[in-house]
Amino acid sequence: MQRYFAKSKQEHNFILNNDDLRHIKTVMRMKENDEILVVFEQKTYLCVIIDIQSDIKIKIKEEIEQKEEEIPKVTLIIPILKEQKMDYILQKATELGVDEFIPFYAERSVIKEKEEKQSKKLERWNRIVKEASEQSHRLTIPNIRKITSLEEIMKLDGTNIVCSTAEKNTNIKKILKTLTKCDRINIVIGPEGGLSINEEQKLINNEFIPVTFGNRIFRVETVPIFIMSIVNYEFME
Amino acid sequence: MQRYFAKSKQEHNFILNNDDLRHIKTVMRMKENDEILVVFEQKTYLCVIIDIQSDIKIKIKEEIEQKEEEIPKVTLIIPILKEQKMDYILQKATELGVDEFIPFYAERSVIKEKEEKQSKKLERWNRIVKEASEQSHRLTIPNIRKITSLEEIMKLDGTNIVCSTAEKNTNIKKILKTLTKCDRINIVIGPEGGLSINEEQKLINNEFIPVTFGNRIFRVETVPIFIMSIVNYEFME
Repeated sequence: MQRYFAKSKQEHNFILNNDDLRHIKTVMRMKENDEILVVFEQKTYLCVIIDIQSDIKIKIKEEIEQKEEEIPKVTLIIPILKEQKMDYILQKATELGVDEFIPFYAERSVIKEKEEKQSKKLERWNRIVKEASEQSHRLTIPNIRKITSLEEIMKLDGTNIVCSTAEKNTNIKKILKTLTKCDRINIVIGPEGGLSINEEQKLINNEFIPVTFGNRIFRVETVPIFIMSIVNYEFME
Repeated sequence: MQRYFAKSKQEHNFILNNDDLRHIKTVMRMKENDEILVVFEQKTYLCVIIDIQSDIKIKIKEEIEQKEEEIPKVTLIIPILKEQKMDYILQKATELGVDEFIPFYAERSVIKEKEEKQSKKLERWNRIVKEASEQSHRLTIPNIRKITSLEEIMKLDGTNIVCSTAEKNTNIKKILKTLTKCDRINIVIGPEGGLSINEEQKLINNEFIPVTFGNRIFRVETVPIFIMSIVNYEFME
């Protein structure tokens, strides 16, 4: 059954955003009395569509019980990459339960965009994570912060990690093993060619723990998926 | 430094395939005395290019020590999917150290191709995994079997697993925890919509263990990456 996140609630009805209403009407071609699932404030509701012609109304029938996996809250701090790789990371990490993305310009980021393009990008990214959340039946949509500087990133609370190409001893497993489900973990991922020595040292000086994944060489877009997979695995019961 | 897998060895020289020779000459525009890395029989060699004009010769300078992660040998048994998803699985699972792919037509596979197209496909797939192996500095290239029937798959030796949408109790972690680095694990992944009840039951009757990944809903192309990530994690030391 089709799932949508509601914008707000009015008594027994949900308000969806205009894109979703258009989707219901022109893509799914739903009729009156068709049912959909609506997620609102981390709960899922079976709803029925009323009055499709003029003003689409989404009426609540009942709440549906839905369990979500409990894992630590992961913030992926990702360099701005080419569109296709960025989209891919946003979609896949969302499927795998990421809590938040913080995009940043790394010294070696290939793409550097003007300020006015950034809000367009953010809109597009938010659309991608909303759709991926719906498709993977999540109860929340990951937050995407606006493009942030390394200086801001250094102030994050939680267990702070930087994916390092220089580190040889501490692997990510050693860190994950110390976490509980309630913890927050912030992970900085480098661009193609890695973080600069300067960037990595700045983070380490600010108590970011450098970790290795072992001897494998991953493409940059594989790293977030690897991280989210192993976090899920570590907390699988 | 650029890496290539050698086709064969002749005394102190390696023979590369024609695609790689073309790559060296026309894409990389290498010159005489330029160095490359060549992988042959699971060893890496620093080599030098001799005589680029007429007949490219690749002369061995020295063997380079290279450690590879030790994990169980994983065979991913994947349904034929649309080209983009298939390419993506082949590339990413190769990066993550898969040993073998066995493609099969599932009842719910959207794509059904004629016999004559299959060998073209296999050629293309082999190119993708060779390139991904070079990029991720692997010492071996994953094997891709020709498209196989479910009946053949049932005869595989090793720990046999089927990703199930019905199974609620046995998660994949329970199985991975029982393995050693030397084991072989064969994992059947379903297409969009999953395996049919009939297919899954046939596999279970032939001692394939049905496993769940928990409550998350993954796109089909995410599943192999998730599996390979957690196998690497389980055997990380």
